[in-house]
Amino acid sequence: MKEIIIASTSTVHGSGYLEYLLPDLEAHFKLATEILFIPYARPSGISHEEYTEKTNIAFKKINKVVKGLHEFSNPKDAIKSAKGIFTGGGNTFVLLSQLYKNDLIPTLKNNVENGTPYLGTSAGSNICGLTIHTTNDMPIVYPPSFKALGLVPFNINPHYLDPDPSSTHMGETRETRIQEFHKFNTQPVIGLREGSFLKVTDNDIKLKGKLSARIFLHNKTPYEVEVNTSLNFLKQ
Amino acid sequence: MKEIIIASTSTVHGSGYLEYLLPDLEAHFKLATEILFIPYARPSGISHEEYTEKTNIAFKKINKVVKGLHEFSNPKDAIKSAKGIFTGGGNTFVLLSQLYKNDLIPTLKNNVENGTPYLGTSAGSNICGLTIHTTNDMPIVYPPSFKALGLVPFNINPHYLDPDPSSTHMGETRETRIQEFHKFNTQPVIGLREGSFLKVTDNDIKLKGKLSARIFLHNKTPYEVEVNTSLNFLKQ
Repeated sequence: MKEIIIASTSTVHGSGYLEYLLPDLEAHFKLATEILFIPYARPSGISHEEYTEKTNIAFKKINKVVKGLHEFSNPKDAIKSAKGIFTGGGNTFVLLSQLYKNDLIPTLKNNVENGTPYLGTSAGSNICGLTIHTTNDMPIVYPPSFKALGLVPFNINPHYLDPDPSSTHMGETRETRIQEFHKFNTQPVIGLREGSFLKVTDNDIKLKGKLSARIFLHNKTPYEVEVNTSLNFLKQ
Repeated sequence: MKEIIIASTSTVHGSGYLEYLLPDLEAHFKLATEILFIPYARPSGISHEEYTEKTNIAFKKINKVVKGLHEFSNPKDAIKSAKGIFTGGGNTFVLLSQLYKNDLIPTLKNNVENGTPYLGTSAGSNICGLTIHTTNDMPIVYPPSFKALGLVPFNINPHYLDPDPSSTHMGETRETRIQEFHKFNTQPVIGLREGSFLKVTDNDIKLKGKLSARIFLHNKTPYEVEVNTSLNFLKQ
């Protein structure tokens, strides 16, 4: 019985860290008094300790204690015995590299697939897809592979941004980037706008939040799906 | 005697492809009637043929003929005998992967270091740095390494964008991304705004164009350098 929340962002504009998600997280993590936090993505390069403390403060509001994965001498055992797991945002390349370095990909995947409730935001959501080929992050470290957890049978593009018709900047739009991805890869991509999230309950995947999401299929025109749409049709 | 132009972009807003660079390119490529074009970065996924034809049209205005590297059965020999080389923009990961696949990194580096005039724009500029760790592109393919040509002793960030204080988007600013890079790497990074370029003449590196550029040094506050500044002090 999978129980996964895959969120575009940890923070929506004008609101505190994780604040908009707390009502859902209370239900999602109802059986966990302690949350295992994976701080590896290190946003702005902050330390594992600082990031864990920041997350602990946010989870206190729903009466959860947060422990950082870096605090355990055996991180595999920590994942196996966790009652709830949260992987925070930051740099996806740094996060995935550290997961590979500690050989945690199979353990994390198995435990989440076998029912440990999981929350990912931003980089922590990217790794829920088949690969990190559709991250927006700068490739500041070189991971041994771009293959990710594959908890859903498609790729995620978090912080999805619509093209700005008034922009004079010549860099590629997000849509152009994802279409370039599809010249070399075939799996579907979902562009999740900030405030949107996917809720995975066993094999059912639903779009939640207030905004529509954008679906990119190989050799098809991108299109929108509305909130509460089942995304079970998205398969490689 | 190195002769290299490393440009932030091929195209500035409101102007045609390569148009703003043509007066400089006429001088830069004065001894070449034919330009060898490396179309590997495939912007928007266009084919090598389409990209070469687009570039040929632009270079016709300064009476140069463009040949695509993909047209040669032996690309190493094509690089060795070229009188001028241009690597166009697109996706840096796709470009670097293809250069590695055809084992062209040492040949390209040697020939440019020994005097073949070289122009890079965007992705074609990223590969002039030590690594592609500071590209803005989406990692749509997995190259065997992020190491690049190292024609200059620092990294390039093309299409450099200043933070937008009115933005409500929670994705990282460019400055934050480069500062995250410096948590894991020590080499300098130059943020080149659109319209800016570096002119390398032997061991002298100068900022050209109309805009200042932003310098990011490990453990230092970022700062601006003005046009015509010598950047020879930027060393790993």
